[in-house]
Amino acid sequence: MNRVCVVMGVGPGNGEAFVRRFCREGYKVAMLARSEDYLKQLESSVDGAHAFTCDMMEPEQIAAVLSDIKSALGPVSVLLYNAGGGAFKNVEDATLEEFEANWRLNVGGLVAATKAALPQLRQQDSASIIVTSASAATRGRANTAPFASAKAAQRSLAQSLARQLGPERIHVANVVIDGVVDLPRTRQMLPDKPDEFFVQPCAVADAVWNLCQQDASAWTHELDIRPFGETW
Amino acid sequence: MNRVCVVMGVGPGNGEAFVRRFCREGYKVAMLARSEDYLKQLESSVDGAHAFTCDMMEPEQIAAVLSDIKSALGPVSVLLYNAGGGAFKNVEDATLEEFEANWRLNVGGLVAATKAALPQLRQQDSASIIVTSASAATRGRANTAPFASAKAAQRSLAQSLARQLGPERIHVANVVIDGVVDLPRTRQMLPDKPDEFFVQPCAVADAVWNLCQQDASAWTHELDIRPFGETW
Amino acid sequence: MNRVCVVMGVGPGNGEAFVRRFCREGYKVAMLARSEDYLKQLESSVDGAHAFTCDMMEPEQIAAVLSDIKSALGPVSVLLYNAGGGAFKNVEDATLEEFEANWRLNVGGLVAATKAALPQLRQQDSASIIVTSASAATRGRANTAPFASAKAAQRSLAQSLARQLGPERIHVANVVIDGVVDLPRTRQMLPDKPDEFFVQPCAVADAVWNLCQQDASAWTHELDIRPFGETW
Amino acid sequence: MNRVCVVMGVGPGNGEAFVRRFCREGYKVAMLARSEDYLKQLESSVDGAHAFTCDMMEPEQIAAVLSDIKSALGPVSVLLYNAGGGAFKNVEDATLEEFEANWRLNVGGLVAATKAALPQLRQQDSASIIVTSASAATRGRANTAPFASAKAAQRSLAQSLARQLGPERIHVANVVIDGVVDLPRTRQMLPDKPDEFFVQPCAVADAVWNLCQQDASAWTHELDIRPFGETW
Repeated sequence: MNRVCVVMGVGPGNGEAFVRRFCREGYKVAMLARSEDYLKQLESSVDGAHAFTCDMMEPEQIAAVLSDIKSALGPVSVLLYNAGGGAFKNVEDATLEEFEANWRLNVGGLVAATKAALPQLRQQDSASIIVTSASAATRGRANTAPFASAKAAQRSLAQSLARQLGPERIHVANVVIDGVVDLPRTRQMLPDKPDEFFVQPCAVADAVWNLCQQDASAWTHELDIRPFGETW
Repeated sequence: MNRVCVVMGVGPGNGEAFVRRFCREGYKVAMLARSEDYLKQLESSVDGAHAFTCDMMEPEQIAAVLSDIKSALGPVSVLLYNAGGGAFKNVEDATLEEFEANWRLNVGGLVAATKAALPQLRQQDSASIIVTSASAATRGRANTAPFASAKAAQRSLAQSLARQLGPERIHVANVVIDGVVDLPRTRQMLPDKPDEFFVQPCAVADAVWNLCQQDASAWTHELDIRPFGETW
Repeated sequence: MNRVCVVMGVGPGNGEAFVRRFCREGYKVAMLARSEDYLKQLESSVDGAHAFTCDMMEPEQIAAVLSDIKSALGPVSVLLYNAGGGAFKNVEDATLEEFEANWRLNVGGLVAATKAALPQLRQQDSASIIVTSASAATRGRANTAPFASAKAAQRSLAQSLARQLGPERIHVANVVIDGVVDLPRTRQMLPDKPDEFFVQPCAVADAVWNLCQQDASAWTHELDIRPFGETW
Repeated sequence: MNRVCVVMGVGPGNGEAFVRRFCREGYKVAMLARSEDYLKQLESSVDGAHAFTCDMMEPEQIAAVLSDIKSALGPVSVLLYNAGGGAFKNVEDATLEEFEANWRLNVGGLVAATKAALPQLRQQDSASIIVTSASAATRGRANTAPFASAKAAQRSLAQSLARQLGPERIHVANVVIDGVVDLPRTRQMLPDKPDEFFVQPCAVADAVWNLCQQDASAWTHELDIRPFGETW
């Protein structure tokens, strides 16, 4: 076996955990992010990880990189779309440009990635597209307007993809994270929270890995993930 | 009483029915659409209707027109966002540009309109923003990818607006139409369907009017609308 | 016109407001509740209101009373199922008997009422069944286990009824109230809340009345109702 | 390790697959069903499986059996509530007794089982309650009235349990199966369907097992399961 996984949007947190998990399972993993330095550092420390600099806001870059990955590593069988983030502001404090940028990162990039990856995914007996979502995808709050609307659009797109591609044995899933992921940045912002308050990236990676192992007779399209103590 | 209503996205169907209904109730109605000819014709036949040419894909035009409306008719108290429509295609048949255009019309335009209208709406004792949605907003199907994801984003935005603006007594509602609206175009496409298959625009206008009359102690944020025989 | 409306579960609040509204519109209204004294008092003060003692936990009583109503007032065209209430407890504090009683009142009673009323509703050109629901119907919280699960079951039943009966031109709607209704009891429990905190029953009655007036080309199955300042 | 799992509602299909999977992982598994013959046969063929005759419609039996299990095998750490099934009829064809029986099996039994099992689950460092649900839980169709409303009530209850018990490190999850499970009975009913049409019970058991292994920082409350070719 010599399978190829692409992780779009690698950073400390879920993205890096996905890279490590799929490498550990024997995959060649193409890591995409804007920062070449960060990727190079990760590449040197994780066996099987390969750096591909890419800005997920730029669809032409995405198309080009997916082509490079095929040449370098072979056709992709797993696409993990982890690019995300956005503006936590209300409609007045956010600019229209922020709304658009949030859409571009969460939706436009996934459209471009899907278009570019599909011919490769279709060469496999089984393939997966997994999207990292957030509870904001399920409701718009006053101060999450740009982010929530972009994530709602992305979630709808994931459903369209699942319904189109399922019958072709391409498994599309949406992982709705409801909680704060354990990152240097979030720890600094929330210094008083105990360890157990945070979502552990390696546990998210377990969930993503399990999704990719599901038998085609029992696929999950959506699951939520939250720490045991989270209020919801 | 001399209240002002803006209908964004006027065409034969719901938009025109909204114009007629609010004019009949004594409102001055600003009608926005791209086609000046169409608007002028409607203006000449409906008392109280005023034509303002505007492309809802162009946020600067929206801002400028809202300012013109205030000068010409006075500050707005009802904003009906009826611009919509989109591509019914799967992710491969639709171009990224179509995805973006659908977002721009359904979401970007509503953001721009809200930003431009809010100072006027806040001058009123009570005010309303009503969004025309579709059942596609609630789920992504294989062949509705660009439209459904744009409508999902718009629905999320309407929730954010409702939660932000409700406490200021600005009522935001989302009207989810599940069915085919009776239009010359849809009749031509579906010549074998009986009259009762179609949603009547004047009945949608009744629902929108009733939303705008609700007591502030019992506001509806979302309602669905479908013909009695529709399968759902 | 000499139309007949049945309000099941009349008490100070929404039930009484429904009675007053439909009487004012010229309906003969059959009021059902357990307390004969309360109903008799209301009967004497509202023109068109008729008292029918009935325990909504007892399906045989429901069947018998619907038959009595037909004999006394004529066949029913509007059925408002307003019986409700329940236990706000977690699964351990609530007894199994409380779970069952909540189901019996919210679901069993609606099943019995629908079965008994359908032959009468079918004699009409148009007819309505409107269910008073609550936001608990949409999610189970720790301390609403018996009530929320009964309301979720009732909401599902309302959907089944709507899908079955819509094509027969019987309009079924579910009114999800998200807020505290203004009642002597709730005022006493929340003495510090301002007037505007409470849902006004007559405003809920407006919404119910409007649902019953909708054109068959544009029926609403579900709408939410909440005060403008409610957090959600 | 000597952990105990209870499977309530064992039959050919998911229940039996759960038994086999947890036994294979080294659990002692208490199997509950009405048919002693069937359980005894299974007991003799699966190492670690123990038969406990029980009717899930009878809460006193459930309480008694949970106590017997503790005496015989030790305190339970995993409760799989797989009792289910129901009437696929509309509101008129179904009797009120069928509605009630569906509620009793899907909701009443889960209430009784939770009350009986909680003291045992609380003795563990980590524990799980997993409920087998169905897509009917998410919507009421015309011809699923009793089953769908019971499953909606059960789903709401699972949410209440998850929110109450999560902070105590008892993981509650709801597994929404959307498809036809591969059983002798369903094969007979649908003789023309290909193998891949059916949900494989052992794949459902994988999902349930994975839920029970999740790290407490990343618990899933709900996931859907469907065959890759299912229309949804």
